[in-house]
Amino acid sequence: MLLLTFEGIDGSGKSTQAHRLNEHLQERGHKTLLVREPGGTELSEQVRSVLLEPALNVHPMAELLLFSAARTQLVTERIRPALEAGRIVICDRFYDSTTAYQGAGRNVADPEWLQSFHRRVTDGLVPDRTYLVELDPETARARRTEGNDAAGDRMEAEDEAFYHRVAAAYDTLADEHSARIHRLDGHRSIEALHAEIRGDVEALLDAPPGTPHAATGSSDP
Amino acid sequence: MLLLTFEGIDGSGKSTQAHRLNEHLQERGHKTLLVREPGGTELSEQVRSVLLEPALNVHPMAELLLFSAARTQLVTERIRPALEAGRIVICDRFYDSTTAYQGAGRNVADPEWLQSFHRRVTDGLVPDRTYLVELDPETARARRTEGNDAAGDRMEAEDEAFYHRVAAAYDTLADEHSARIHRLDGHRSIEALHAEIRGDVEALLDAPPGTPHAATGSSDP
Repeated sequence: MLLLTFEGIDGSGKSTQAHRLNEHLQERGHKTLLVREPGGTELSEQVRSVLLEPALNVHPMAELLLFSAARTQLVTERIRPALEAGRIVICDRFYDSTTAYQGAGRNVADPEWLQSFHRRVTDGLVPDRTYLVELDPETARARRTEGNDAAGDRMEAEDEAFYHRVAAAYDTLADEHSARIHRLDGHRSIEALHAEIRGDVEALLDAPPGTPHAATGSSDP
Repeated sequence: MLLLTFEGIDGSGKSTQAHRLNEHLQERGHKTLLVREPGGTELSEQVRSVLLEPALNVHPMAELLLFSAARTQLVTERIRPALEAGRIVICDRFYDSTTAYQGAGRNVADPEWLQSFHRRVTDGLVPDRTYLVELDPETARARRTEGNDAAGDRMEAEDEAFYHRVAAAYDTLADEHSARIHRLDGHRSIEALHAEIRGDVEALLDAPPGTPHAATGSSDP
């Protein structure tokens, strides 16, 4: 029915917002599916555990391909069936993460190639709305350190320059896909962000049937 | 120094030939590296175990991406360093397997896209020679059943029509890349095939330094 994705650098608060939105929609009586990437299927969880092994040597292109394999499986096995059954699907990270993290962060492929590659990986599925929680990398790092994930996994252990490249790539994506990607100021309170997201989703849901969502018919991703 | 790959449908005898060639070259005093796909690195072996789980639901595109992730890692971590150290690298399956099995067998992507995709995955690495052991699918199936792998893994459990599509794709590849791909009649004896391969490799090794191999400078893959 609706595919809503959450994006942002680690520590931005996007997962909190994805969960809050899911609870809100369920309380309102909507059928939802909340998934995170990589994960959500047996295959994707196996790939996740490979990707998050801190000691494993993973080439950046291999990382890109593993994330994409997990995504293909998640779209086919869970997301498309849920959308067809009328559910609202909330996905914590989707292909914009790959463009930002592997494309820009690790410089493994150019954005144009990634755009056409994502289309193959998702078989053309584009989110109806993407919530990008923007936070400066220093604040995000401080939040990550405060959390109980101090041990960190391989992805979290990246340096500051990496997160600056990722944040810049998200910024570019938001400019290029301004109808799909809704920017949110991650320095605001959890409650304020939730209210803004809730309002936007309600507007999407209130649109009369047949009203095209922002991304429909565009060449997005 | 030289990258030699072995291709063919399951049961064709290509793995036997890869091992025989490796032994022969070592006896002749060459430094070699023998690897199989998917595998050969810690990451690639983990991907292999995911791919060969019979009960796991794996979408064909996810399968293609997982094989490719394992290949990227193998090329970067093992094959390129070995070639740079002057070794002869023998690889039991390489990207032609993906074109034949996932591309044609599972019809997941067209050969043109796969060709450019393989180039990204291997960062442009092309085998100096590919030995394609050709065997009709019925004979190959009989050989597989004779072996002690009767339980079979997910890849081996495919039906006859699948193997006919794979064999046809190999045939097309051999036509298109006739300078690189050396066809071998898999109905002949192990010893006769080994002698033919050995002779071809010796000719490659005897070529004066700087002599371009068949694939060098071509747009292969």
